[in-house]
Amino acid sequence: MIKVTIWNEFRHEKTKEHVKAIYPNGLHAVIADFLGKNEDISVRLAALDDEYQGLPDDVLEDTDVLIWWGHMAHKEVDDELVKKIQQRVYLGKMGLIALHSGHHSKVFKAVIGTNGNLQWGREQKEIIWNVNPGHPICAGIPDHFLIESEEVYSEPFFIPEPDALLFIGWFEDGNVFRSGACFNRGAGKVFYFQPGHESCRSFYNPYVQKIITNGVYWAAPNNLGFDIEDKCPHMLSPTKDEFNA
Amino acid sequence: MIKVTIWNEFRHEKTKEHVKAIYPNGLHAVIADFLGKNEDISVRLAALDDEYQGLPDDVLEDTDVLIWWGHMAHKEVDDELVKKIQQRVYLGKMGLIALHSGHHSKVFKAVIGTNGNLQWGREQKEIIWNVNPGHPICAGIPDHFLIESEEVYSEPFFIPEPDALLFIGWFEDGNVFRSGACFNRGAGKVFYFQPGHESCRSFYNPYVQKIITNGVYWAAPNNLGFDIEDKCPHMLSPTKDEFNA
Amino acid sequence: MIKVTIWNEFRHEKTKEHVKAIYPNGLHAVIADFLGKNEDISVRLAALDDEYQGLPDDVLEDTDVLIWWGHMAHKEVDDELVKKIQQRVYLGKMGLIALHSGHHSKVFKAVIGTNGNLQWGREQKEIIWNVNPGHPICAGIPDHFLIESEEVYSEPFFIPEPDALLFIGWFEDGNVFRSGACFNRGAGKVFYFQPGHESCRSFYNPYVQKIITNGVYWAAPNNLGFDIEDKCPHMLSPTKDEFNA
Amino acid sequence: MIKVTIWNEFRHEKTKEHVKAIYPNGLHAVIADFLGKNEDISVRLAALDDEYQGLPDDVLEDTDVLIWWGHMAHKEVDDELVKKIQQRVYLGKMGLIALHSGHHSKVFKAVIGTNGNLQWGREQKEIIWNVNPGHPICAGIPDHFLIESEEVYSEPFFIPEPDALLFIGWFEDGNVFRSGACFNRGAGKVFYFQPGHESCRSFYNPYVQKIITNGVYWAAPNNLGFDIEDKCPHMLSPTKDEFNA
Repeated sequence: MIKVTIWNEFRHEKTKEHVKAIYPNGLHAVIADFLGKNEDISVRLAALDDEYQGLPDDVLEDTDVLIWWGHMAHKEVDDELVKKIQQRVYLGKMGLIALHSGHHSKVFKAVIGTNGNLQWGREQKEIIWNVNPGHPICAGIPDHFLIESEEVYSEPFFIPEPDALLFIGWFEDGNVFRSGACFNRGAGKVFYFQPGHESCRSFYNPYVQKIITNGVYWAAPNNLGFDIEDKCPHMLSPTKDEFNA
Repeated sequence: MIKVTIWNEFRHEKTKEHVKAIYPNGLHAVIADFLGKNEDISVRLAALDDEYQGLPDDVLEDTDVLIWWGHMAHKEVDDELVKKIQQRVYLGKMGLIALHSGHHSKVFKAVIGTNGNLQWGREQKEIIWNVNPGHPICAGIPDHFLIESEEVYSEPFFIPEPDALLFIGWFEDGNVFRSGACFNRGAGKVFYFQPGHESCRSFYNPYVQKIITNGVYWAAPNNLGFDIEDKCPHMLSPTKDEFNA
Repeated sequence: MIKVTIWNEFRHEKTKEHVKAIYPNGLHAVIADFLGKNEDISVRLAALDDEYQGLPDDVLEDTDVLIWWGHMAHKEVDDELVKKIQQRVYLGKMGLIALHSGHHSKVFKAVIGTNGNLQWGREQKEIIWNVNPGHPICAGIPDHFLIESEEVYSEPFFIPEPDALLFIGWFEDGNVFRSGACFNRGAGKVFYFQPGHESCRSFYNPYVQKIITNGVYWAAPNNLGFDIEDKCPHMLSPTKDEFNA
Repeated sequence: MIKVTIWNEFRHEKTKEHVKAIYPNGLHAVIADFLGKNEDISVRLAALDDEYQGLPDDVLEDTDVLIWWGHMAHKEVDDELVKKIQQRVYLGKMGLIALHSGHHSKVFKAVIGTNGNLQWGREQKEIIWNVNPGHPICAGIPDHFLIESEEVYSEPFFIPEPDALLFIGWFEDGNVFRSGACFNRGAGKVFYFQPGHESCRSFYNPYVQKIITNGVYWAAPNNLGFDIEDKCPHMLSPTKDEFNA
């Protein structure tokens, strides 16, 4: 069983009518719906305005994959919480999936090592190209698919070179974007995926749903072969002496 | 069910007494033994001196993961067979695991794009370090483990930068080697793993067995989301017209 | 002084009037013109129909960077010549720049380890985005620039994950393409760049010229710190004994 | 002219006699000595106990490459300074070279996205292997070289997969370490290099000096082709309209 916590800023859906119309219970609820259809995935919801910003220690420590959607309130997220998330990823205890405007979240920026900058513009048609069909996150995804409307995100996107680039988005207005990218950080895995503007219906798109679902399976932690702690240990005896031990 | 074909040059085991003593039925038989313990893996053996060098088209087309061990007879492998293997990997229909002296096989060199060169020396103690504990192939592997005796392989190893470096070997004589490395080629996955000299007992080592087993699961092809053929197709109509179709 | 050999198939320019009108002396002559303006670059031209396919051993051995443009006659290129080029790159004696339809050349495919497949279509407007502004090949290139007309190349492009992705192309018809990518192979460097269809004027574009020029400086071999030969040497004495030597 | 600022914690050299004996004016002074022999490199020294921790804004803004050595006082480094350094690297205005125990500095950890953890032990002999002889930082470096005494650093080193792995260290006690690695972050370049313990003489080693010198040339910023600011700009008009402008 993979335990997924879906963290949503969950402000737009309460304050803007056109967003509420699309995601009446929050966009995290829609993500929970499609992920929850998988018998080996259990889902929990968390929001910025919940107690402990939705992620008290016991929840964080019971999370295998953290999905993160934030936008206007990035600055309100507690710095200590960011550090806990960051370390949990590095120690290989949890994977991270950052969606859409999560590119600018404290969590994504700290974990990856980026300022997260890009260019953005009006909502428009997007074509997403699958440039890595052999990758597990691309399983079952055609060579390209259409998204009726998304906020344009454009290069240059100041991420480090991804460990695997999966998707490139084409936008009507003349822009391209690295729309899906995998990063390894410490012993943890991170997936960034671009669709998911609050006033667009992308989380209902079956390919978007398939990709996020694949992302959960990919980002879930391994069975680590040794205990990884946050320390820099001193080695008391020569490793090679183990041959004769 | 993952269908694995284990290809072995299978000459040393017939001609050299000390090799036959370790691997009486060929080293591929030992690999088949431990892989076959997994219910979702089926195993087939193939050898250079079999008809069609062990890989007639129907066998190749029924193979999800090809494991390759060759040494002294690399040059005897048929060039057309190499091309078929190479293309099958690139098309995402089969993964490839090259073991030990397979670094110099026609198959590994052609698929990866390398001359496969390295330095080598006498058999000695090796310590293998796990530098990528979050990778699926490293699942269940400690931070390091010992191998009683292996042929030393030494840097510089003229491979391209791996997509993921998994293991680094330490040798008594002062050498290091990138002992486990993953490469993506086309829509296929390739894993190179250094232990496995014919006169050493490495294929009986439980960690070596675990790593090769993990490698099989990792290299097995995805459920591709579209049919990949070996061609460069002309697109007759604009992709963006699909929005209005 | 960096010695560049520009190899051109040089058939279209002799047989098709509209191509000859753009590149009367061959497209390699135009590349030679702009490269030759740099005092530390010397240029030599080579063509498929020259003696030894333009690359006798003495020319190859006097080449620091080989630029390759081929299209309809890929199959005519001599396999032995391909092997010589491949090895020279791997040994760190020469860099390689493959232009446009060179993605399907024997040379590019063998050196990189790819089938080079992609999709293609009619000539149209392209916007090239600079996704790696800190890379030496991107020096002086704006965040994007326009190309009035290019043959569309589209993903999926079945190259391995590049060591550095530099450019992504946007095409009017709804396509994207990894238009500039760097690969390290052995001790050598390879740059692939997409613009340059024979019936388009891209080689006159100042940004295309700047990028190819930057590519030459980037791909030129290092001062290697040791002699790299095409062999797999046996080490006679323990490396660590050098401490006491 | 490349402007290099060498930042040193500069505490050990003042308080420990055996360190002072090796580096009487601080280890940064020795680095300055060998870098300063290059006519196109200018060097400035900075230390933790200087005003503004040695890096007031005018110094930082006049720095092309920042070299960082810290150890026991990582926590004293001002968080705001770390953010300034991080952003300057991401914006492509400055390269970063982290030496030895700098793996655990706030600067390295924030810029790269890592907890910097590793294992360490007693001083001993090291052999450094050159695994990337075609890389500019490896120019003039043999396939391996010896270091009489270094503090052992051991895998697992919890860095992200480097964009280029250059060196692997072998240690007497049975350990290996990725001793030299390059990372691209935003539009900036980062090089980590392991030798340089305060009580060892590594900064007098000619190969160590050559590598750090090569690192300065490699990490120096490009001539950026456009102005990169720390912002996420809104695009007011479609990019493709530029064709008709």
